[in-house]
Amino acid sequence: MKVIVSRKAQFNAAHRLYNPDWSFEKNDEVFGKCNNPNYHGHNYQLVVSVKGTIDPETGYVIDIKDLKSLIKEHVEDAFDHRNLNLDTEEFKKLNPTAENIAVVIWNKLRPHVKPSLELKVQLHETERNFVEFEG
Amino acid sequence: MKVIVSRKAQFNAAHRLYNPDWSFEKNDEVFGKCNNPNYHGHNYQLVVSVKGTIDPETGYVIDIKDLKSLIKEHVEDAFDHRNLNLDTEEFKKLNPTAENIAVVIWNKLRPHVKPSLELKVQLHETERNFVEFEG
Amino acid sequence: MKVIVSRKAQFNAAHRLYNPDWSFEKNDEVFGKCNNPNYHGHNYQLVVSVKGTIDPETGYVIDIKDLKSLIKEHVEDAFDHRNLNLDTEEFKKLNPTAENIAVVIWNKLRPHVKPSLELKVQLHETERNFVEFEG
Amino acid sequence: MKVIVSRKAQFNAAHRLYNPDWSFEKNDEVFGKCNNPNYHGHNYQLVVSVKGTIDPETGYVIDIKDLKSLIKEHVEDAFDHRNLNLDTEEFKKLNPTAENIAVVIWNKLRPHVKPSLELKVQLHETERNFVEFEG
Amino acid sequence: MKVIVSRKAQFNAAHRLYNPDWSFEKNDEVFGKCNNPNYHGHNYQLVVSVKGTIDPETGYVIDIKDLKSLIKEHVEDAFDHRNLNLDTEEFKKLNPTAENIAVVIWNKLRPHVKPSLELKVQLHETERNFVEFEG
Amino acid sequence: MKVIVSRKAQFNAAHRLYNPDWSFEKNDEVFGKCNNPNYHGHNYQLVVSVKGTIDPETGYVIDIKDLKSLIKEHVEDAFDHRNLNLDTEEFKKLNPTAENIAVVIWNKLRPHVKPSLELKVQLHETERNFVEFEG
Repeated sequence: MKVIVSRKAQFNAAHRLYNPDWSFEKNDEVFGKCNNPNYHGHNYQLVVSVKGTIDPETGYVIDIKDLKSLIKEHVEDAFDHRNLNLDTEEFKKLNPTAENIAVVIWNKLRPHVKPSLELKVQLHETERNFVEFEG
Repeated sequence: MKVIVSRKAQFNAAHRLYNPDWSFEKNDEVFGKCNNPNYHGHNYQLVVSVKGTIDPETGYVIDIKDLKSLIKEHVEDAFDHRNLNLDTEEFKKLNPTAENIAVVIWNKLRPHVKPSLELKVQLHETERNFVEFEG
Repeated sequence: MKVIVSRKAQFNAAHRLYNPDWSFEKNDEVFGKCNNPNYHGHNYQLVVSVKGTIDPETGYVIDIKDLKSLIKEHVEDAFDHRNLNLDTEEFKKLNPTAENIAVVIWNKLRPHVKPSLELKVQLHETERNFVEFEG
Repeated sequence: MKVIVSRKAQFNAAHRLYNPDWSFEKNDEVFGKCNNPNYHGHNYQLVVSVKGTIDPETGYVIDIKDLKSLIKEHVEDAFDHRNLNLDTEEFKKLNPTAENIAVVIWNKLRPHVKPSLELKVQLHETERNFVEFEG
Repeated sequence: MKVIVSRKAQFNAAHRLYNPDWSFEKNDEVFGKCNNPNYHGHNYQLVVSVKGTIDPETGYVIDIKDLKSLIKEHVEDAFDHRNLNLDTEEFKKLNPTAENIAVVIWNKLRPHVKPSLELKVQLHETERNFVEFEG
Repeated sequence: MKVIVSRKAQFNAAHRLYNPDWSFEKNDEVFGKCNNPNYHGHNYQLVVSVKGTIDPETGYVIDIKDLKSLIKEHVEDAFDHRNLNLDTEEFKKLNPTAENIAVVIWNKLRPHVKPSLELKVQLHETERNFVEFEG
């Protein structure tokens, strides 16, 4: 009998969508205004979920204070108030679409969550657009 | 490794819940105030989700501009500011419950989303009531 | 020293915007899709606020249970699951725009709120459109 | 072809997290400020979901008025404006973590939902923390 | 030309509404389930607003990091995860209604905000009930 | 008897907070991570409100379609998916704090709203920080 525990967080970042192997025209056609060379930005809203059994001693699947700290250390401290393309290693060569950001966050968190716990990441790029990844 | 991409949209419509094979009394008993012959209405909030692999060239599962256009063409243009019972073919003979509207929307969108992508529809009828259908 | 106390409520209704003194063409030009003769609808979200001094015996400006009951009796019971144009006296001859609905609600509630309390009505027609009236 | 129908509800309760088999120091270390012996509290937001096939006569998976009543009778009447540790049988000996509350709610509702319907409970303890249980 | 700057915060607390000068019956009649002697609780959502002129050197009315710190020091550290009736000096003899809590918070913050800035406090006790106080 | 009509909109932009007359150290001390030379970004949520009397022929204070168009032309087209510091004339020499952005938007819209209508701008920079300006 497993329970999912979720924690919401947020980070504010600049980014630009483009493929360096393409011409500016091709990038413009595919990514439109998201290809602005001067960047634009978002309030990224993040939901990190872990699924596992309840520890009978604590009543917790995971101490949500620990989950909050993991998100702060591995996601917020790395991405908040950053330019994803310029300031992070992960997106130097990877297009920072919502899909890719979610996968990167999942990969950053996975080693720090016990193997017995399943992990899911939901990332809202705007009020109307969001993505999910569970490995 | 699959990612889910979701887009929110909205349409405002009138409807009435009733079964034409039943008496007014039976309809009243089952559907209550939703059976008002003069109709009532809702701001339907819609979340359309597609699940698939990330295209390594774009970083997209689907271009969310395309998903937005599909929803506009096949759902918003068909249902927004309409009376679902009177103005749409789909609900001439089908009771426009949230469940049936979600299935109809799924069926309208399915042919226009690539077969390799899974499709899910979530429909909020009010702030407190919502339904989901994934085929 | 005055405090404002607010209560949120909701009603779901159908309506049509038009001016009966105008041609259908003129109505169509001004009200567009809101002029659908078969009606459309909304989840109207309402915030009713009263402003006054705190009663030192209760710590209340108004018992919010009483405010909730007033809204139920005079607004929800009158408008919820109704067609505003057809089912209510107030909008038989008055165009049910958000502005007019807010003024009507204010006028319906005003006699039932103590004269020493100021009254304000906020009405959300959609997630993005809302109006306010304070007499 | 199954559809999920969900209903949101809320209850406001006090609670304290601790394990009676542990010292106060151990409880303090694990539960921190949640171990305040004088209790703290939350607005618990609940989403109850049932999954099943649509009844062709009604267009409903479940009459959402029935789902609303079940939640009122078995959850809101039991937990709203209560101290979970002192006023309820379920948490006299069970630590009222969000995880355990979700499981208890699921167990309270399960006998009252038709066996052919799957049941899921989502419980938000704060704006940023929530849990899910589906049996 | 003045601008209002607002910051949202939250605290989770237990409380009980009653007037110690009244009988339990009178308290029960007036405060209903809010008079539970074992307490209940809320996620209080707070919005603190200051109004003033923009400093031309910084572009700020107030550094919102300072406003955030003031709220943390004087409100969150005092009320979060507390029993308002038992754990705070302010409500030992004052009924912790939303109205009174808002006035207390305003009085706690006022000495720490520059006299040239106007101060307003909005406090949400539940999703549907909230109050405002501006001195 | 005046009614306020409000419209919500959104734009996603990059920005950097700094005063070019100050050293990097002074900027860092005052603006912290907001002074990242590579920029960060936000989903700015905007509420534009106009206050005036109801036109008895239409029931409108302003046609909200016109208000929506004004916001699109003068705010969204100018700021959405832009770098406020680099891509806009207004913030070439003005620090793009939320306060200054709100004043700039108000000044951009004021000439296009009838003088008989009062104008107010509310701008949310994050979920927890927002500002208001009414001239």
